[in-house]
Amino acid sequence: MSKIARAMLGRMPVYLEYLKSLPDDAPPTISSTVIAKDLGLGEVQVRKDLGAVSASGKPRIGYQVEELMLKLSETLGHGSTIDTIIVGAGKLGKALMDYDGFEGYGVRIVAAFDIQADERITLPSGRQVLPMHMLPAYVEEHPVSIGIITVPASAAQAACDQLVKARVQAIWNFAPCRVHAPRSIVVAYEDLALSLAALAAQIREGRSSR
Amino acid sequence: MSKIARAMLGRMPVYLEYLKSLPDDAPPTISSTVIAKDLGLGEVQVRKDLGAVSASGKPRIGYQVEELMLKLSETLGHGSTIDTIIVGAGKLGKALMDYDGFEGYGVRIVAAFDIQADERITLPSGRQVLPMHMLPAYVEEHPVSIGIITVPASAAQAACDQLVKARVQAIWNFAPCRVHAPRSIVVAYEDLALSLAALAAQIREGRSSR
Repeated sequence: MSKIARAMLGRMPVYLEYLKSLPDDAPPTISSTVIAKDLGLGEVQVRKDLGAVSASGKPRIGYQVEELMLKLSETLGHGSTIDTIIVGAGKLGKALMDYDGFEGYGVRIVAAFDIQADERITLPSGRQVLPMHMLPAYVEEHPVSIGIITVPASAAQAACDQLVKARVQAIWNFAPCRVHAPRSIVVAYEDLALSLAALAAQIREGRSSR
Repeated sequence: MSKIARAMLGRMPVYLEYLKSLPDDAPPTISSTVIAKDLGLGEVQVRKDLGAVSASGKPRIGYQVEELMLKLSETLGHGSTIDTIIVGAGKLGKALMDYDGFEGYGVRIVAAFDIQADERITLPSGRQVLPMHMLPAYVEEHPVSIGIITVPASAAQAACDQLVKARVQAIWNFAPCRVHAPRSIVVAYEDLALSLAALAAQIREGRSSR
């Protein structure tokens, strides 16, 4: 799979839903022109998007529908779910556990760990919050690929260190600070304060240019 | 102020804290070389960052410390706080209300509204959740610039419409869907599912290229 841009990735579920919605007696091939028209997207964009997941598109014939659906599913990780755990089961951690939409991308939050949990807690949703000290034993039995940090900044590095020991391949850090991990681990930052600040800066710029 | 990139904006509080930490008897000017060295940043980056907020930097003299602090504060909106409200006081909405770090960028969440609130609720933090029907009267008395949407996708457009009526200038949408607002209103999307999906896609790419 070639490198897929974030915005492109966001359109993949749209293509997949669309192809699934085609009637059973539809032709086995479909052109990018038809897809673009039905979805209200630009034809160049559709060709670029689908070209990134499948090499089956042919001029005047189009894409094999079945093959394209399979490639889209693979790209979206259906059938090979990536398991993640959360460190920090405060409001944000719990909000992420309840957040709809991760599974559409083949990602599943399997458990959360919290320093303040004395024992295993089952949330109304059925998901579990476990005491922090149970993390090493948990990941021995349930390998996880991504660790999500939703602790305060002061505890973020310790959480990161635990996740590194748990052999995650990527870390998604919501704490408003940098964390240090070996270079082989991908670290992505979700700095919500900065996102809101950027929006506020746009408003301030608009005001000062009036 | 020229257009300030997001990453640059994130460094502004660092520069400001640094300048504030200088001793009272420090010289009235400071060079980008010294700042870069003390903060472990590249000199070119420091010059570019500070050049975006202040035109006072001069070769061999540097920046006027007082003037630079003032410009950084202005850029960060200190003294002209931007007020925001949240629509949807579920876990995510409440997590944002408790999130530290917004105020460092001159942004303040002043209230949350929820369709399920029958009456005014005061949270342990002292912040208030108000019934949705109180939104129009609230914004008459407390003008707000940004509306944050943390309702499920199915309720996002209705929330957006309410915020448009409330005359916000920008909307920050956490619901995993597009919303339609007049073009004069800035809409920013915080698609958490997509962020996690992008991270998962990187892991999958790493695996398939091995």
